Amino acid sequence: MDSNGSGRRRFLKQAAALAGVAAGAGAGTEWAARGQSKMPELAKPGAGAADGQDHREMLRRGARFSVDHITYYTPLQDYAGIITPAQLHFVQQHSSHWPDIDAQQHRLTIHGMVDRPLSFSMDDLKRLPSVTRIHFLECQGNSSAMIHGAGNQNMGPPVQFVWGMTSCSEWTGVPLSVLLNEAGVQPEGKWLVYEGADPGKFSHTLPLAKALDDVIVAYGQNGEPVRVEQGYPIRMIVPGWEGPFSVKYLRHIKVVDQPYMAWNEAMNHSIPRADLGGKSRWYHFQWATKSVITRPSAGLEALRIGYVQITGLAWSGGGAIKKVEVSTDSGRTWKEAKLQGPILPKAHTRFTFDWAWDGEETVIMSRSTDETGDVQPSRAELYKNWGIPAEGPVRTTHFNAIQPWKVARDGSVRDAMFS
Amino acid sequence: MDSNGSGRRRFLKQAAALAGVAAGAGAGTEWAARGQSKMPELAKPGAGAADGQDHREMLRRGARFSVDHITYYTPLQDYAGIITPAQLHFVQQHSSHWPDIDAQQHRLTIHGMVDRPLSFSMDDLKRLPSVTRIHFLECQGNSSAMIHGAGNQNMGPPVQFVWGMTSCSEWTGVPLSVLLNEAGVQPEGKWLVYEGADPGKFSHTLPLAKALDDVIVAYGQNGEPVRVEQGYPIRMIVPGWEGPFSVKYLRHIKVVDQPYMAWNEAMNHSIPRADLGGKSRWYHFQWATKSVITRPSAGLEALRIGYVQITGLAWSGGGAIKKVEVSTDSGRTWKEAKLQGPILPKAHTRFTFDWAWDGEETVIMSRSTDETGDVQPSRAELYKNWGIPAEGPVRTTHFNAIQPWKVARDGSVRDAMFS
Repeated sequence: MDSNGSGRRRFLKQAAALAGVAAGAGAGTEWAARGQSKMPELAKPGAGAADGQDHREMLRRGARFSVDHITYYTPLQDYAGIITPAQLHFVQQHSSHWPDIDAQQHRLTIHGMVDRPLSFSMDDLKRLPSVTRIHFLECQGNSSAMIHGAGNQNMGPPVQFVWGMTSCSEWTGVPLSVLLNEAGVQPEGKWLVYEGADPGKFSHTLPLAKALDDVIVAYGQNGEPVRVEQGYPIRMIVPGWEGPFSVKYLRHIKVVDQPYMAWNEAMNHSIPRADLGGKSRWYHFQWATKSVITRPSAGLEALRIGYVQITGLAWSGGGAIKKVEVSTDSGRTWKEAKLQGPILPKAHTRFTFDWAWDGEETVIMSRSTDETGDVQPSRAELYKNWGIPAEGPVRTTHFNAIQPWKVARDGSVRDAMFS
Repeated sequence: MDSNGSGRRRFLKQAAALAGVAAGAGAGTEWAARGQSKMPELAKPGAGAADGQDHREMLRRGARFSVDHITYYTPLQDYAGIITPAQLHFVQQHSSHWPDIDAQQHRLTIHGMVDRPLSFSMDDLKRLPSVTRIHFLECQGNSSAMIHGAGNQNMGPPVQFVWGMTSCSEWTGVPLSVLLNEAGVQPEGKWLVYEGADPGKFSHTLPLAKALDDVIVAYGQNGEPVRVEQGYPIRMIVPGWEGPFSVKYLRHIKVVDQPYMAWNEAMNHSIPRADLGGKSRWYHFQWATKSVITRPSAGLEALRIGYVQITGLAWSGGGAIKKVEVSTDSGRTWKEAKLQGPILPKAHTRFTFDWAWDGEETVIMSRSTDETGDVQPSRAELYKNWGIPAEGPVRTTHFNAIQPWKVARDGSVRDAMFS
């Protein structure tokens, strides 16, 4: 963690003083003079985006385009390990096309309740202290009840189209704390509101405490530049929190004194909850612990009697995964799965479980526990806690219930969330 | 670790018994009957290889082709984090072209001193227990004295062409111990000799103890199929040991009672050593600890006075990295660098160090220590230990000396291994 912002800030000021540059100049030129150990400008990714090649490739892999949205689900059933290949990272793009940003011209500005408004070029950012960390990103609608079952037959049953809005990458960039400490947040500044350079100017709010903790202004993904569909040239990465916080094509950060009701925060994301006395939580932040068996899973090849390796992923916004249990007898008994290293906070963790299937009908499922003791609930437990109807697809984002897969005697597997 | 081979073997036999299949059938059909949780066959990678597209792409990135060799160096200076993008993994191909293997037809055979000779199709392998681990691979000639200095002006000075024969990937496959335990190694079987399906039938020897420890028969690299130039469809991954053990296009494994002098083991790889009484070690196995500053490094953009982030990689065949120290004053003083997680055994570890350059000439370098206490030596220390001449490029594979980079007053950086 680079949370020692004040120490870092002093160091940078010292370095600037060595260079004979006033620390308060407040623009890109200031940063340009501060040093040289920058990441090189690699070839711009997705060069085919403009002529539609990326679109065609994504369509081939199952992407869906509409007037104001591009969706792509990660094929969780088709890869191993924890790093999602960058071109398979899920996409929930709130516009009809990727912005065509010239990285040489792109600027990130920090303004509002700060001592020194700043503007950074990409070269500026790449000369600053960098960190690399492995974190998942997950859409707040992922695995939710509304995308199971009959209401969404067109999406098909595979794990890809129910759980595939989570992916895990090695992100590289500048700690946001470094930038904020250079700008100098004023005492009344308690929140950020920030905006992307996409056609819809996707915006979001973030409390300052999180911004100073582990947030990264990322220009690298799996060792290469952030891909166009992931926010090239820079993306805010807010580890462990729901996807909309991680704004792509990051352009403006304003330090403010209260949360803002940005459009994307105000729409469709709140649920009246019994555990809150019938009130709704307006903001949702951190993901609870989740897990899913990715193989075997619905719609893949039929099982045959004998040895079956069960494998899947577990993660939590609260930290590292502590254990994953698997049941192969419809929940009557649970046994601990093997966790494969590395087991990292706010990152996918791979688990495996050796099973000998006897040919009988059964339900298999996984249940994760994170290092804070948070245990993944069943759908019934979750619905009871939240005080929402027990049956039928409903709007339940922020959903982390156990995923049951039903194995029939012919070896076929299907989603059993509502049966 | 899946070193509990006998337990695993019993489990697989039990699973086979449930399936009503004789455990000794000894061929692919046996495995095909054992279960179903297999990895799917993804699109064959490198489809352009046959028509030369991969060659052209690699040439563009700096690959070199000759009559009997293809070499490609990883641009260590151009990526962050620890996972080498798969298409940037180094290549030392001991043939003039990639073999064009049909994965559907490819078989891996295990024979020799075993109870049950076995043959596995790719489908068979993918139904077996799998593991995923992050490990480096490194050519035994990497960073060696013979590729520094005047004798190799044509290779240029950048870190890529001196240190770029190490890369780090997330490898997925079957533990070799699972396969050997199914075959049943006989008491007199103490070594393996194994061969690839490339034109030169690249072959190597491996002691059984290592084979049963952490070796993987890998079909996945960074979540995708192993690339053609990395051994598609399967590669032996021997973690922490010198590159030639990790044979590509793996086809035959023979269990034998003594080491074999395979051609690639018998050529050019031994050094008379004072510390061994003037004898040579015929076999070299595990890499000692190494580290290198990748930025700033020779030939990149000139430094400017002020803040400079120093970053690089450290690794060891003996386990995890314990610490990395950096000197920015030509070795007079050393300070501990920050290690970025994850810090994994036999994997690259990323380090960073904040520096304020004062404009004076100096030498910067890094020194790693691994969890066994092994410390990276200076070139002088290494040569003294090995009893080889102090100056000039000589044949010294298995080389792990500290890399000094000289910073001139104009901010330019060059290799200072021999000055």
